[in-house]
Amino acid sequence: MPVDARRTISDLEQLRALTADDLGAQRIAWSPTWVKARAWFQSKVAELPVEQHLDAAGNSWTTLRGESDSTLILGSHLDSVPNGGWLDGALGVLASFEVLRGLAEDFHGRPPITIRLVDWADEEGARFGRSLFGSSAFAGTHSIQADRGRTDRDGVRLEDALRQCQVDVDRIGDAAKERGKAGAYLELHIEQGPVLEAMQLPLGVVLGTKGVERHAITFHGQEAHSGSTPMAVRRDALAAAAKLALEIRPIARKHPDAVATMGSVKTFPGIVTAVVGRCETTLDMRDLDAGVLASMLAEAQEASRRFAAEEGCTVEWSKIWNIEPIPFDAKLIEFCDQAVGEVAGKSHRLPSGPLHDAAEVARAGIPVVMMFVQSLNGLSHNPAENTRNEHLELAVQAFDRLARKTMDWLKTTS
Amino acid sequence: MPVDARRTISDLEQLRALTADDLGAQRIAWSPTWVKARAWFQSKVAELPVEQHLDAAGNSWTTLRGESDSTLILGSHLDSVPNGGWLDGALGVLASFEVLRGLAEDFHGRPPITIRLVDWADEEGARFGRSLFGSSAFAGTHSIQADRGRTDRDGVRLEDALRQCQVDVDRIGDAAKERGKAGAYLELHIEQGPVLEAMQLPLGVVLGTKGVERHAITFHGQEAHSGSTPMAVRRDALAAAAKLALEIRPIARKHPDAVATMGSVKTFPGIVTAVVGRCETTLDMRDLDAGVLASMLAEAQEASRRFAAEEGCTVEWSKIWNIEPIPFDAKLIEFCDQAVGEVAGKSHRLPSGPLHDAAEVARAGIPVVMMFVQSLNGLSHNPAENTRNEHLELAVQAFDRLARKTMDWLKTTS
Repeated sequence: MPVDARRTISDLEQLRALTADDLGAQRIAWSPTWVKARAWFQSKVAELPVEQHLDAAGNSWTTLRGESDSTLILGSHLDSVPNGGWLDGALGVLASFEVLRGLAEDFHGRPPITIRLVDWADEEGARFGRSLFGSSAFAGTHSIQADRGRTDRDGVRLEDALRQCQVDVDRIGDAAKERGKAGAYLELHIEQGPVLEAMQLPLGVVLGTKGVERHAITFHGQEAHSGSTPMAVRRDALAAAAKLALEIRPIARKHPDAVATMGSVKTFPGIVTAVVGRCETTLDMRDLDAGVLASMLAEAQEASRRFAAEEGCTVEWSKIWNIEPIPFDAKLIEFCDQAVGEVAGKSHRLPSGPLHDAAEVARAGIPVVMMFVQSLNGLSHNPAENTRNEHLELAVQAFDRLARKTMDWLKTTS
Repeated sequence: MPVDARRTISDLEQLRALTADDLGAQRIAWSPTWVKARAWFQSKVAELPVEQHLDAAGNSWTTLRGESDSTLILGSHLDSVPNGGWLDGALGVLASFEVLRGLAEDFHGRPPITIRLVDWADEEGARFGRSLFGSSAFAGTHSIQADRGRTDRDGVRLEDALRQCQVDVDRIGDAAKERGKAGAYLELHIEQGPVLEAMQLPLGVVLGTKGVERHAITFHGQEAHSGSTPMAVRRDALAAAAKLALEIRPIARKHPDAVATMGSVKTFPGIVTAVVGRCETTLDMRDLDAGVLASMLAEAQEASRRFAAEEGCTVEWSKIWNIEPIPFDAKLIEFCDQAVGEVAGKSHRLPSGPLHDAAEVARAGIPVVMMFVQSLNGLSHNPAENTRNEHLELAVQAFDRLARKTMDWLKTTS
């Protein structure tokens, strides 16, 4: 039977009524509201002929056993940031539920391969600052040692909060057992950016998640009196930083999908009557191609040293965090392109700037693809986050087609 | 008799021992340490045949009555910033004392005209944020209404602190009576900048204090996700601000003595993963020529609007404070040039970037000039503030010559 995409929208509205307040969605992972959202979802899923369980990292699995152990995984996350939107994560989970329901009915509870739905635990990292928690445990890329000391803003320790949700931080690696015979992972998500809206396209195929280089860059000059220090003898740390803020833009624009952002500038002493003696900045660069990303970083570093020298300053770099680009599976990208084309007429391939659980699944060696649906005004992590209803319906229909194409392929290859 | 400049250095060292701690000078106006410094100074002055009193604004006057009421005023301020230097203000007061001593001796206590020494109250404004307090009351430019509500960081009200020092804020305007028959005001001060040191000159003649235009400039763009927002659609408020930070420099460099400073930049939301949606900056521009200053301000405003438009942003200006340039007296500038030339061989004329009490005296219509002595490394408002002893000695000698030239001129014109 065809999926009923309007049912997905109705489910999303029910979830919003249950877990949002006037400021937006409040499904912060490991919170009572998140636990309530999951309980609501599990009671809905219980209508289907499926098994449900939580794994060692708190990921919630729903399994529809098929003729073979070869497995297709569909999923996303129910957790949200504080004051979040109604679609980020929840759309992917509830669309997967609708697809699962259709397959269960069409195959009388026993499809040719096993279909699983996963609701990953703590994608956002909103409370403890560690995003992709459950999916990285599944992928085996998560060492709890680095995160054991984390506390929330009330001083509650990560391990104590997780114990309340039946998760023992020393055992999260056991979530890797869930990989089983997984042959593919599919995730539907809102774009959270303006690209599809600008192209007037409802849906897109995600090529992978961009690699990220995130650095703190500090320029050291000489604090001086704004009235008594001639222009010619100044060593103005802000001037060097301003040059870099502008130079990162042509560095990124050489590449079609690259981005570079100076998001924070702090000036010291930072008063109206003093030349800036020290300027602390941050840089975030992203691209889907590791070589492009490395060359962008090298260019920015060279430029920063040149600007520091020009201004009589010195410059110091400190890495905040980085991750390599995660390309998605070529075969699944083709299936996704076909599914989008069949439903929406025209498809578009684009990289994802934000990270997603799909990136961690890909790191586990499982073929992965994501489908994006248009976001209005590029807004996300915000109660104003929205997508047109007709686009949501197209998204559920196209995601269903993608799942069936992938199932047919796994059936023949397993 | 010639002045004994080494006695001035010895006096400054005594004052430092009495009023500085490990962090520097602590003669903050209206504080017990400042009161102690003034009491020490008054006991020294009491050796001379002079009258002493505090005026209605807390300025401390020492009067050596002469044959005529025509009056030459010498002075500066004993108050310092917290953790300040040993010379800022104190040099001018103690050099004036040495000159006064010499004149008293040479003329057996009755010079041809009246000579007064003034120690202005609260030049720095360090505690209540209102600089040039006493000299502006003297000049009649100070309306207490605007400053009545000021408190220090402990919440003590300005008027309560001043009452402890026998100053009634409602009567500070009475300090204008002290103008009397003042025919000239002379002030010796450290340069607090690097110009004389770079020219290897001990002394300079101050042409006036620069006018100041001080503004807050805020660029409004659009906060956006650093990963999902393509470069081409960004409205980056930091980019517009960075362009302005660089553009103010060529605007100032068109004029020999002009300066322009962006001292503070604040980014919002100011996180590594977001394009800057709002950027708050400050601008401080100074020049001795009012026309130059006005054209610099207009150019900066035009540039800010152009950069905002280029970046899809808007810009908003808000005046923090401004003051017109205060040119000093041409005749006294000549005398100062001669005095410096006689003592140091070579003179140099330069504007003052920082404001001084002399500017307020000039606003009262009294002819004014200042003499600068070289600062080491341009440092001031800092315990590292220093000047070579031989330069301090030249300064006292040249200031004595300037006072005598001015006295002779006032004698003939009165």
